[in-house]
Amino acid sequence: MFLMNFSYQQLYDFTVQVFQHTGCSDADAHLAAKVLLSADLRGIDSHGIARLSGYVRLWEAGRINPMPEIKVLHETPTTATIDGDRGLGLVVAPAAMRIAIEKARTFGSGWVSVQNSNHFGIAGYHAMLALQEEMIGIAMTNASALVAPTFSKERLLGTNPIAVAVPAGEEAPFVADMATTTAANGKLEILQRKGNDAPEGWIQDVDGNATSDAHALKTGGALLPLGSDYEHGSHKGYALGSVVDIFSAILSGANFGPWVPPFPAYVPMPENQPGKGIGHFFGAMRIDGFRPAQDVKKDMDHWLRRFRGSTPVAGQTKVLVPGDPERRMEAERRINGIPLLTPVVEDLSALANKFKIKL
Amino acid sequence: MFLMNFSYQQLYDFTVQVFQHTGCSDADAHLAAKVLLSADLRGIDSHGIARLSGYVRLWEAGRINPMPEIKVLHETPTTATIDGDRGLGLVVAPAAMRIAIEKARTFGSGWVSVQNSNHFGIAGYHAMLALQEEMIGIAMTNASALVAPTFSKERLLGTNPIAVAVPAGEEAPFVADMATTTAANGKLEILQRKGNDAPEGWIQDVDGNATSDAHALKTGGALLPLGSDYEHGSHKGYALGSVVDIFSAILSGANFGPWVPPFPAYVPMPENQPGKGIGHFFGAMRIDGFRPAQDVKKDMDHWLRRFRGSTPVAGQTKVLVPGDPERRMEAERRINGIPLLTPVVEDLSALANKFKIKL
Repeated sequence: MFLMNFSYQQLYDFTVQVFQHTGCSDADAHLAAKVLLSADLRGIDSHGIARLSGYVRLWEAGRINPMPEIKVLHETPTTATIDGDRGLGLVVAPAAMRIAIEKARTFGSGWVSVQNSNHFGIAGYHAMLALQEEMIGIAMTNASALVAPTFSKERLLGTNPIAVAVPAGEEAPFVADMATTTAANGKLEILQRKGNDAPEGWIQDVDGNATSDAHALKTGGALLPLGSDYEHGSHKGYALGSVVDIFSAILSGANFGPWVPPFPAYVPMPENQPGKGIGHFFGAMRIDGFRPAQDVKKDMDHWLRRFRGSTPVAGQTKVLVPGDPERRMEAERRINGIPLLTPVVEDLSALANKFKIKL
Repeated sequence: MFLMNFSYQQLYDFTVQVFQHTGCSDADAHLAAKVLLSADLRGIDSHGIARLSGYVRLWEAGRINPMPEIKVLHETPTTATIDGDRGLGLVVAPAAMRIAIEKARTFGSGWVSVQNSNHFGIAGYHAMLALQEEMIGIAMTNASALVAPTFSKERLLGTNPIAVAVPAGEEAPFVADMATTTAANGKLEILQRKGNDAPEGWIQDVDGNATSDAHALKTGGALLPLGSDYEHGSHKGYALGSVVDIFSAILSGANFGPWVPPFPAYVPMPENQPGKGIGHFFGAMRIDGFRPAQDVKKDMDHWLRRFRGSTPVAGQTKVLVPGDPERRMEAERRINGIPLLTPVVEDLSALANKFKIKL
């Protein structure tokens, strides 16, 4: 498996053209490319351009509407449910986050649940939209069921990520962006490609027993909630993944639990779906809704410096704050480019041929 | 170590009298007793009446004001910061949650950060106040530093619990209430009393190495964030505990990180404290802020039935939903009474002597 290096601009221009060829407006194609590639910049390679052909296949299967009419179905001054009209989550999510931010601007906070959407890229991108507004941003989404609740043989939850972004003053902001599982599915896919075993505590087999077989999901196994097993708090990871599912889909009327549509277009849709599409949830809170902004930012700087300055254990040079590794990766990749694995490059070449465009 | 059984009413009457003797109003004494004992009813024995003498010692040390003037320091239509005036967290927290609920009634959601408070019992009690209002309830608090961030030798976070309560229709509600660590400190205390080792993944020693010594916290060790180690996602538990600290204390102006006041009155206060007291954070969202309440409740029932009906692994009879074990425990203990360990009974007897009241 080789790595080829591409500049951000090269991948961006290509991705914009691909989305344009699927019928997106120019504005939406640019936005979708920016959101998708924010994953590659931040080092979350599983959620970036590696998925571009997957989005195209969903469009070919009629499961993505390139010209969605995104509308508010129900609202109060600070809450709303949005119908994503089967649009790209990459476009629906920023629109929903904007509504949350506008509500927060007027009333202090805003909370938006979304139905009838699709995969939205990395949660962190959407949460971070709040930072420039001096707001805390929150983003989460459900996803197709790969995760078994504690003591369950069945897969009932997705990897259901949560992102929380908090602005600071002089220090770089706090940006948590995490799957509610022990390991993200993308990390498991890397082990599968390399033919390596998975660490114990990441997955269970079809009977619910611990296994290190990285391919166990293909034979009815499941990812484990954050905590791995009951003795190490997997019921807490299960609870967190459930909160994401409930906020994203029960509030909005999207599909939930085992009924969330799968990302691969070839996987059949679950039967008896109770809702519409995939669900997301977004929140924004003005920091000056609690205290003067400069007081919050000063204390947040103090917090960040204390945590970043903590004494590390032997073998580590520094204690990091959530968001630090991704920010460093982005700074590095904007200069040195984004490395892509051979299968991803081949995938993009096939798209280039399909749409007669140049990678 | 023996167990003695007490009726809820007996412990309630006793606790009310103790709080009255510390100078609380009758109404506050009743409220504090109800909140404190909700932990014993729900089986979270570490946070219930076992802590009553600890609250009394904080009052004796002048760290709890029995007649607090709780006031709003800053607000928008849906956000506020409250000064708890060094009151019992058991009283300050429900007052703050009520403000969140009132804001939600008018504007769809309400979010309240609290400074200058003390320990508030179990987070779940406060979150569940929203249920009867057809709202989702959220409660969290910071606590004195016992937890090391991933790769840190130092303890910088408390066990920082998060509770989320979601109303349903016919089914019993979803109530998650969880420390953001692998194991709650109360579970470790049980092992210490029994002289047992701790499971690997719960704690680290003074150098940050894995240890099964249940007493390692007394020699500079630390509890581990949910996930246990980096390979199993401890950076996610660290991120969650950090979010609780930031929402509870950076927004409100309470103490944060290593500066949060300790619960035991004999432990010296941290130096150079940046804020006031302990911080909490509460939220309430109307479910009909997103869709008609009956639609949300119908889908929530569907969700709960699907998860409760999931096929369990061998050796387990049922898959549970967060809140199920605690609700069963409460039903059982309301009938059969609350068992207390000998040291707890001795502690309560000493309080009875001190205040010349009857246990």
